[in-house]
Amino acid sequence: MRTGVWLVGARGSVAVTAVTGLLAMRAGLADTVGCVTESPELRDRGLPGLDELVVGGHDVVDTPLLKRSEELGAAGVVPAALVAAVASDLAAIEADIRPVPAAATQAATVAATVADLADFRRRHGLDQVVVVNVASTEPRPPRNDTHTDLGALRAALTGTEAVLPPSSLMAYAAFEAGCAFVDFTPSTGARLPALDELARLRRVPYAGNDGKTGETLVKSVLAPMFALRNLRVRSWSGINLLGGGDGASLTEPGANAAKTASKERVIGNALGYRPQGTTRIEYVEDLGDFKTAWDLISFSGFLGTAMRMEFTWHGCDSALAAPLVLDLARLAAAAHRAGRVGPLPELAFFFKDPIGEVAAGLVDQWATLVAFVAGLGEGGRAARA
Amino acid sequence: MRTGVWLVGARGSVAVTAVTGLLAMRAGLADTVGCVTESPELRDRGLPGLDELVVGGHDVVDTPLLKRSEELGAAGVVPAALVAAVASDLAAIEADIRPVPAAATQAATVAATVADLADFRRRHGLDQVVVVNVASTEPRPPRNDTHTDLGALRAALTGTEAVLPPSSLMAYAAFEAGCAFVDFTPSTGARLPALDELARLRRVPYAGNDGKTGETLVKSVLAPMFALRNLRVRSWSGINLLGGGDGASLTEPGANAAKTASKERVIGNALGYRPQGTTRIEYVEDLGDFKTAWDLISFSGFLGTAMRMEFTWHGCDSALAAPLVLDLARLAAAAHRAGRVGPLPELAFFFKDPIGEVAAGLVDQWATLVAFVAGLGEGGRAARA
Amino acid sequence: MRTGVWLVGARGSVAVTAVTGLLAMRAGLADTVGCVTESPELRDRGLPGLDELVVGGHDVVDTPLLKRSEELGAAGVVPAALVAAVASDLAAIEADIRPVPAAATQAATVAATVADLADFRRRHGLDQVVVVNVASTEPRPPRNDTHTDLGALRAALTGTEAVLPPSSLMAYAAFEAGCAFVDFTPSTGARLPALDELARLRRVPYAGNDGKTGETLVKSVLAPMFALRNLRVRSWSGINLLGGGDGASLTEPGANAAKTASKERVIGNALGYRPQGTTRIEYVEDLGDFKTAWDLISFSGFLGTAMRMEFTWHGCDSALAAPLVLDLARLAAAAHRAGRVGPLPELAFFFKDPIGEVAAGLVDQWATLVAFVAGLGEGGRAARA
Amino acid sequence: MRTGVWLVGARGSVAVTAVTGLLAMRAGLADTVGCVTESPELRDRGLPGLDELVVGGHDVVDTPLLKRSEELGAAGVVPAALVAAVASDLAAIEADIRPVPAAATQAATVAATVADLADFRRRHGLDQVVVVNVASTEPRPPRNDTHTDLGALRAALTGTEAVLPPSSLMAYAAFEAGCAFVDFTPSTGARLPALDELARLRRVPYAGNDGKTGETLVKSVLAPMFALRNLRVRSWSGINLLGGGDGASLTEPGANAAKTASKERVIGNALGYRPQGTTRIEYVEDLGDFKTAWDLISFSGFLGTAMRMEFTWHGCDSALAAPLVLDLARLAAAAHRAGRVGPLPELAFFFKDPIGEVAAGLVDQWATLVAFVAGLGEGGRAARA
Repeated sequence: MRTGVWLVGARGSVAVTAVTGLLAMRAGLADTVGCVTESPELRDRGLPGLDELVVGGHDVVDTPLLKRSEELGAAGVVPAALVAAVASDLAAIEADIRPVPAAATQAATVAATVADLADFRRRHGLDQVVVVNVASTEPRPPRNDTHTDLGALRAALTGTEAVLPPSSLMAYAAFEAGCAFVDFTPSTGARLPALDELARLRRVPYAGNDGKTGETLVKSVLAPMFALRNLRVRSWSGINLLGGGDGASLTEPGANAAKTASKERVIGNALGYRPQGTTRIEYVEDLGDFKTAWDLISFSGFLGTAMRMEFTWHGCDSALAAPLVLDLARLAAAAHRAGRVGPLPELAFFFKDPIGEVAAGLVDQWATLVAFVAGLGEGGRAARA
Repeated sequence: MRTGVWLVGARGSVAVTAVTGLLAMRAGLADTVGCVTESPELRDRGLPGLDELVVGGHDVVDTPLLKRSEELGAAGVVPAALVAAVASDLAAIEADIRPVPAAATQAATVAATVADLADFRRRHGLDQVVVVNVASTEPRPPRNDTHTDLGALRAALTGTEAVLPPSSLMAYAAFEAGCAFVDFTPSTGARLPALDELARLRRVPYAGNDGKTGETLVKSVLAPMFALRNLRVRSWSGINLLGGGDGASLTEPGANAAKTASKERVIGNALGYRPQGTTRIEYVEDLGDFKTAWDLISFSGFLGTAMRMEFTWHGCDSALAAPLVLDLARLAAAAHRAGRVGPLPELAFFFKDPIGEVAAGLVDQWATLVAFVAGLGEGGRAARA
Repeated sequence: MRTGVWLVGARGSVAVTAVTGLLAMRAGLADTVGCVTESPELRDRGLPGLDELVVGGHDVVDTPLLKRSEELGAAGVVPAALVAAVASDLAAIEADIRPVPAAATQAATVAATVADLADFRRRHGLDQVVVVNVASTEPRPPRNDTHTDLGALRAALTGTEAVLPPSSLMAYAAFEAGCAFVDFTPSTGARLPALDELARLRRVPYAGNDGKTGETLVKSVLAPMFALRNLRVRSWSGINLLGGGDGASLTEPGANAAKTASKERVIGNALGYRPQGTTRIEYVEDLGDFKTAWDLISFSGFLGTAMRMEFTWHGCDSALAAPLVLDLARLAAAAHRAGRVGPLPELAFFFKDPIGEVAAGLVDQWATLVAFVAGLGEGGRAARA
Repeated sequence: MRTGVWLVGARGSVAVTAVTGLLAMRAGLADTVGCVTESPELRDRGLPGLDELVVGGHDVVDTPLLKRSEELGAAGVVPAALVAAVASDLAAIEADIRPVPAAATQAATVAATVADLADFRRRHGLDQVVVVNVASTEPRPPRNDTHTDLGALRAALTGTEAVLPPSSLMAYAAFEAGCAFVDFTPSTGARLPALDELARLRRVPYAGNDGKTGETLVKSVLAPMFALRNLRVRSWSGINLLGGGDGASLTEPGANAAKTASKERVIGNALGYRPQGTTRIEYVEDLGDFKTAWDLISFSGFLGTAMRMEFTWHGCDSALAAPLVLDLARLAAAAHRAGRVGPLPELAFFFKDPIGEVAAGLVDQWATLVAFVAGLGEGGRAARA
């Protein structure tokens, strides 16, 4: 089952880390730490193998992949020795990274993107292609009536005004090309009724949004802990200090707001109420690809006794996100193959802001994921039979 | 279903907080925050009601309950106004707190304890009595051959040498008196083959050990988080700074070792391997009833990238433990009534060092607990039918 | 030397804590922990005694002092037992707390304020009166040409437009009444050229701004540490979570900006360069009078090795500020008596944003303070001779 | 002024980092961040220049310097590119690193060590040689009567029993060879009356003990902060988690005790009383050359209000210590040249456990250091005149 992974933002830190790691694992130079689909519970359950993934993608910049990978090596995100070891493989992928199409109308941009995807599929003889958005976070777009009606949207796309933000335009193109779509960012992506309609029409699945890699991951286990012990969380405040490209793009207020809203949802969902406090994101260039998050949780226990907890998370976002990108590509491809159409709420384990009504706790999301993979296997076997 | 709760260490901070809170909740002066059995998933599932609990117990000290409760009020563990409001109820319980029996032989001590329990049961017309150990932590006792053979143990108890540590002697007496036994401390309690034999003989259940109230509670959700994301925990080191009576008793090296071993188990169980690092317990008198724990977790992710997490927990142990004591009394009584005999591994949710082979993660333990309570209800209905 | 302390914001938490504590210390019910002027190096150096301080003030609210003090007792800011013990003394001060004058023109408001101060001085036979601003933080006022010219300002005050913010109007009135003025807040206060001119004309001293009570206090010793070891601070980011009245007023963006700017100055001054990072202030009502600040400092050492430090400060602002208010009143009164006129940069030890060119490090500021007090003593003796 | 720096433990991480950095600074490849003697206040004040330092030393292991430096490069302690750039310079130093002398009697070992030092001096035409101990920490030696009497010590050294621990034997040899001695470790070194007598006899200075590089550095500014504000520190507890060679040697209980005692002194000295709490050192191999220290400080302010502060320090000990080794060599050489004999308490700025009665606060220690250097310059000029 040769499976294409089309990365939107293919020269960004997450994508380059994912690709470098994929090549290193294939070459037997790295183990599979961080890859959820390589856990004992999910390994060998019929997902496409790491050897079966073929990488391509779009990016607006043109720095060579190898150079980007070397930069990550210098920054301590990936081992410099690994980059050197897979240099020729990285160079070979270069040919499959294309500039982002930009045409006079969004409809024409879609057409160019669909052509890129079709070429990619044909060139490599791929069974499926999954498009994964790992580009910079966009601001929330203004409401637009065409977003709820596929017919109206189609018509509007032929005009000169841009009615879809880039992430949604990409989802549109993916669906038109018969590809599954995963949004690893908090951007809008496929989360518009008109796009859901299109996904169903083209019979492809999609998943998102916003990879859960650090502070929110911790929240998704701590918030249920307080809930299960019937403790009352009074305030939960956090700050995220981050450098790197992601941090810089988040200084843009619209993008920051999109991200922050996504980060706060998990607490309210897990607790059943919204404690006081907010989550801040601050750009501190010097921190580079590493991120420090600090959270203060004040809570009361039996008879109202006031207590508190703090945590600090020092993580490398690219190293946390990259294996999940590979996981999601494998899972979405398997879902597509098994005939799943529309949103995949069973992948909530991976997202800060999952689509659909899903459990907020990580462990419940895990159980859902394991069952989902088991079900795909059966479906897959049935489909093949 | 009038249910007795016999507290060993009835004048200690945990017991007094539990009793003060029970009285306050009954009087409608406090809500049920912190009581797990009052969560929506467990409330009204056939457990004995808070109104049906009758409190008695043993202690080696004789400070009046009311005075101890006032001390906790002054220390900020319970609201001083609540203590004043339930003062007469606290005084009424005083009559049911007895000195710890101490006789020439351990057999005679058992007999005196059994008599105390029988009196308590008769005096209040109780359907069941649950004995809960909330006394200070003991050092691990030396191995003794009689611990594995009930017959040999019975014989040895009639000698002048003490063969059982106090917590185990109490478990012995509880079983002989037909009472369920819960060990909320890391002491040996019922965890000896001869005592398990006795529990089965007398057809009573038991549970333990060591209430999971703070740092270990957090570990029981964080360790599974790392495991589920296939991240590699390299070291996990912690320190607990605590004052109060519990802290003082833990300066005794044997007790400290018992507690520390209990605290470290959860990580290895959840991860499937033991990372480097240890857990320290330090007594700092000035911290009083509040405890501060700090943990550093270093881990590696994709391609070996080194990351880390820290947390600080500032909790009031008595306020965290007290509602769990009430929970466990209700659960053990219901299990006893439903005919459960021997260890209750389904109560692992409450313990640092649960008896039996159980899941290490809090969420899995919760699922087990909910199923257990549901099963008791059916069993109970069946038994009553 | 009977010395008046006129508190602007006399019913606020800082003022009420200061007054409650002053009464408790006088009654021998509390020690002098937290009072800098009671340190061995400053005690008995000719400053007005705690017994010689007479308290009065203004406030816009009219909740009785005793009630405010009881509220602080309930919140754990001051011991409830102390409040009860000084209740009648608190009630006696009530008569000296006046509403804030508000007239048709700012000139008339000044006149009414001057009259209040004169009455207070006469009523109690005071040698000096020090006005201390502990009211809520104001937003920065717009520039106004009259601020740099006393003559123009005088003229403008007679108009119906408000040309001075309240803190500066208060400084104006204090100077006109021959009183020293201390600004414990980051508001503008006396920091206008026209007001400096007036202070010199009336021959009174003034000091400020913005009491250094928590995070900035820590910064004022940590930043010099990095500088003395020739380490390179790369980023310094902080967040302050605070409830209470101060927190609420700081949600007003102008006030927040004023406070934040004041907080960041110390780092640049101590290091000689501005590292990356900012200081945030967030209001979290549930935290009440306690404040939690968290700072992350990333720095590089020999050969560029990257390192980091974090700290968390959990302080009660009112308990930290209140004794400093008493200290500053005593110091400003002694300076006034010794003939000091205009700004008192030697009091930089107490302020986040001291007036004048002063050392940024706390220890250097301390040395300056000790020398200042010694000099006052000599000046005072000379003046009396 | 060609100055020899003889490193005891020359192949250890601190020494190798110091040498690598010295070579890199000389080659213009690294700036002088972390070097205290390159601060504006101390630069160009007559100390030996970085170009005038000549490095040699002893070690018990024989791994080549270049290999050790490459290991530090791989561990992120020094930049790998720097190591490569100074590789040939490192190799050139190899010839001056000797095995640790070991003879049948300690007197013979001293003689061999003196010969090594004399050879080193002669070979490089050095004006002075400073011996700096950066070897692993020793356990405290048992008391021995010969430690207080130089005559008795001399006699005892000729016997077959070892009466001096290695660090003290090294100090003895240094003094006999006319070299200044600096102990950067908590080992006994020169701190024996008989050795002080010898230093005075040979007219050489010495300094120590135990370089202040991390947690204790922070304590030396925070403890004075609490003291200056007249706040009452109630408890101060800390834990140090460290890997690397230093950590491993500290698992030896005697060494751990020596280090811990040294670390706790600063707080008591700065505050004038000893708060509750202790400092722990734990070895966690995985942390490598980086150390994490966490401290909790509980304190009370005005009217007894309870507050707290925590800090976490993530430092690379070798990178913090290495430049100080160079600083101390330059300072001790200049003191020797200026005719200073016996202990140098003015270098307390650098040490956790300084010799003599000195201020505990870092800023006061800094002022002393600056005055000391200024005085040496004058003395030096006088001596040369």
